[in-house]
Amino acid sequence: MKPVCLILGAGSGIGGNTARVFAKNGYHVHLCRRSDSKGLDALIKSINIENENMASGEILNLIEDHIFEDLINKVELNYGPIEVCILNLGAQIGTKMLAETTEKQFTLGWKMTQLTLFKLSKVLLPKMIERKKGTLIVTSSTASVRGNEGQLSHSAAMGGRRLLCQSLHAEFSPQGIHIAHVIIDGIVDSPDTVGKMLGEKKFDELKKIKTKNGIINPEKIAETYLHLVNQHPSAWTFEMDIRSQNELAWWNSESRNV
Amino acid sequence: MKPVCLILGAGSGIGGNTARVFAKNGYHVHLCRRSDSKGLDALIKSINIENENMASGEILNLIEDHIFEDLINKVELNYGPIEVCILNLGAQIGTKMLAETTEKQFTLGWKMTQLTLFKLSKVLLPKMIERKKGTLIVTSSTASVRGNEGQLSHSAAMGGRRLLCQSLHAEFSPQGIHIAHVIIDGIVDSPDTVGKMLGEKKFDELKKIKTKNGIINPEKIAETYLHLVNQHPSAWTFEMDIRSQNELAWWNSESRNV
Amino acid sequence: MKPVCLILGAGSGIGGNTARVFAKNGYHVHLCRRSDSKGLDALIKSINIENENMASGEILNLIEDHIFEDLINKVELNYGPIEVCILNLGAQIGTKMLAETTEKQFTLGWKMTQLTLFKLSKVLLPKMIERKKGTLIVTSSTASVRGNEGQLSHSAAMGGRRLLCQSLHAEFSPQGIHIAHVIIDGIVDSPDTVGKMLGEKKFDELKKIKTKNGIINPEKIAETYLHLVNQHPSAWTFEMDIRSQNELAWWNSESRNV
Amino acid sequence: MKPVCLILGAGSGIGGNTARVFAKNGYHVHLCRRSDSKGLDALIKSINIENENMASGEILNLIEDHIFEDLINKVELNYGPIEVCILNLGAQIGTKMLAETTEKQFTLGWKMTQLTLFKLSKVLLPKMIERKKGTLIVTSSTASVRGNEGQLSHSAAMGGRRLLCQSLHAEFSPQGIHIAHVIIDGIVDSPDTVGKMLGEKKFDELKKIKTKNGIINPEKIAETYLHLVNQHPSAWTFEMDIRSQNELAWWNSESRNV
Repeated sequence: MKPVCLILGAGSGIGGNTARVFAKNGYHVHLCRRSDSKGLDALIKSINIENENMASGEILNLIEDHIFEDLINKVELNYGPIEVCILNLGAQIGTKMLAETTEKQFTLGWKMTQLTLFKLSKVLLPKMIERKKGTLIVTSSTASVRGNEGQLSHSAAMGGRRLLCQSLHAEFSPQGIHIAHVIIDGIVDSPDTVGKMLGEKKFDELKKIKTKNGIINPEKIAETYLHLVNQHPSAWTFEMDIRSQNELAWWNSESRNV
Repeated sequence: MKPVCLILGAGSGIGGNTARVFAKNGYHVHLCRRSDSKGLDALIKSINIENENMASGEILNLIEDHIFEDLINKVELNYGPIEVCILNLGAQIGTKMLAETTEKQFTLGWKMTQLTLFKLSKVLLPKMIERKKGTLIVTSSTASVRGNEGQLSHSAAMGGRRLLCQSLHAEFSPQGIHIAHVIIDGIVDSPDTVGKMLGEKKFDELKKIKTKNGIINPEKIAETYLHLVNQHPSAWTFEMDIRSQNELAWWNSESRNV
Repeated sequence: MKPVCLILGAGSGIGGNTARVFAKNGYHVHLCRRSDSKGLDALIKSINIENENMASGEILNLIEDHIFEDLINKVELNYGPIEVCILNLGAQIGTKMLAETTEKQFTLGWKMTQLTLFKLSKVLLPKMIERKKGTLIVTSSTASVRGNEGQLSHSAAMGGRRLLCQSLHAEFSPQGIHIAHVIIDGIVDSPDTVGKMLGEKKFDELKKIKTKNGIINPEKIAETYLHLVNQHPSAWTFEMDIRSQNELAWWNSESRNV
Repeated sequence: MKPVCLILGAGSGIGGNTARVFAKNGYHVHLCRRSDSKGLDALIKSINIENENMASGEILNLIEDHIFEDLINKVELNYGPIEVCILNLGAQIGTKMLAETTEKQFTLGWKMTQLTLFKLSKVLLPKMIERKKGTLIVTSSTASVRGNEGQLSHSAAMGGRRLLCQSLHAEFSPQGIHIAHVIIDGIVDSPDTVGKMLGEKKFDELKKIKTKNGIINPEKIAETYLHLVNQHPSAWTFEMDIRSQNELAWWNSESRNV
């Protein structure tokens, strides 16, 4: 039986590419996303063409109640034990000042990040512990390490989830579960999220402005995720950053040298 | 008219002592706490004995809807513009592993920290901006900078609020509002919170075990809060830690030297 | 006998203003700087006009061998026990890429920061421990928390010194010595250092560009230093940042929201 | 021609294992260490048995003057362009309080870390830039992110080098050079360094106390180094931590939950 990789948030960026890379490396991948069943079907189909019967998936709203019990039980019944889970949900809503940020948006940001990870962990980690094996990778971003103007909802959501990952790591690492928090520090070539947020034209312009290797290639992130999964338990990584060679690190700025 | 200091979370520890210190320094203090109206009355009375008509207060559950509109309007109408607000709510629920942490607890932790600060800011900061003056001090803890075993709910709640403070700082500091996030790294002599969580006997034992200056004296924290309020806008502090001389800093441990 | 405050690096910015504020608050201040004896004399004189016999000082190159034994013995003999020491030396050499940075500069940067603090501590801290009392404040900067392009020497020097402060704090705090590391995150109105580095014209332009409260007033930093010295041992601050209301925090940038 | 990997600090731990892993993956490895030419010869021989003509090396004291010009020129002349350099020097001298730490030790700590990296970079990075290609991995430790009691020299040395890496990253990443700072947060199974520091008996006891996967296997670190080298320039990692599943992260402690 193939090991199973569950991908939560599987668009055309990191999620889709993780699916492709893990399928190529022997995993059955199960892809979940909130909308665009046509896009999901096309993605699953294209993976299955290259690697027969390696991909399945469904449209799911992960912030609904009790979603994880059903999802995880079904996936494990149909495809086998989940060895790897990639939590690939963000909560970026663009630049919004306090006056422009509604309580609804703020609450949704928390639900999509901290609450989702909490609820997922309650269902998934006990199963992994029984098998003494499992990896949970959380795709994160710069907003998880610092707040910024217009990022109230995003940074609260991501910053809280980062520390939740640290608490999970402290509890579950000695039990054989590898938790990893990956800080993506830059714009990913992801038409479904960044692309949609900016609009096609602006996204194309941005890609042109950025010089070669200036936008992160999500397939390359997926390769690092595969490496994390393959790390030996005596040498696990909890946190790492990923950025393009042409991007300033978040702690740098062009104009400040004090 | 006296400047007004609004204290949210006013027990016998940091909140109560902040009230006392600010009243002594010319502020009208308005104290809010969730329960124990007898304790609140006694606190208000004892402040008013020393400084006539300097203290008022009420029992309020701050996570209820629309609480801040009413509270802030009323306080400003009765006592004048709020110049200082001390947000003194934590979300410590003791050591609880994932299996022992309920979704209700996890949600409550978020409401008491991130959501409360968000809602408070929506009401209070626009008023301060109009007057181009104001200070908002958030009492925080070690859990805001790192997760730990058994601290899933607490660290998620506090870590998210810390980055929310950074985002508020980025937006409101240039508009004249001083936001400060104070990391209390140790146990405070606060009978109403730590004392109740541990129980009287255990709390007394703890105080005995800790040598002189090993438990943080909340009156001394209040003096630092007063200093923060008095800082000049060209030299504001956003973040500082406070710990007893006998306490290891959170980044230290006795056994790890690698 | 008046308590003594030793100020290492006493120009017209933070050092000079600390001297003034501490003298006004009852300290005898002893000022050391590397050059400009005329400037030093004028500073001492102006302090002594306001507060009779409160200031003394000398020209000293602090990176010379065995400087601290002589200096500290002499100061304690003449004026009394040193209760406070302000280490106010930086190692900023402007923006220099690797090819432009010489080994001599790099070595000097280390000497002025890490080695100086190490040597000072070896002489001063044992004396403070005997008296179970003392405060050592290290004026630091953003370069102590992150490297930046063109800041190789500066960031290595300051980053190492910050962790040295943490190690000193871990060892000496339980022995009653208060170590504080203050991160000045912005440009200080200091004609002798920033002013000289930029040149008078550029410095004036910079001050004009910066809006009100955009350049840090060093007298206001000195007031915070005085507060640190006055903190109670149960509520000491090890680290805090100071910046102007109009300055972006180092972790923020205008153009990055990922 | 095979790509060349230069390993500075090549004992039986991370250095030796990196050599083995890179040789197996097609690199010519050149190993430098300060002492034990017998051990070095044996290591080179054992690599060459498995992978013919893949390893060379020499005994060198890297803190001597002008060592890097000669070394790097010779290696490139004999074996080809250096594509990867692993800087594997630490400065751990055990637990030493301030009174026990000599200026000589403190200076040596700096020389072995910050100064060595500075001098290496001055020689190596310009060559890599000409070829628009190269990776420099710095093996680091927990001491690079926080000071601790008895770690004055070590933490100053490592903390400064970490920020130097950040400054190098900011300058050289856009020029195509990948700088990585890897925080090894735990004890590595390295008989030549930790083993010698503790003594054989204590090291054996330590390994027994630590449960399965409690001591980091250096071969597994080497595999992560290989992954870093293979990362695509659009998705480079600057910093990551590595620890055993059974080790508390440096930011955690068993007894502190505040």
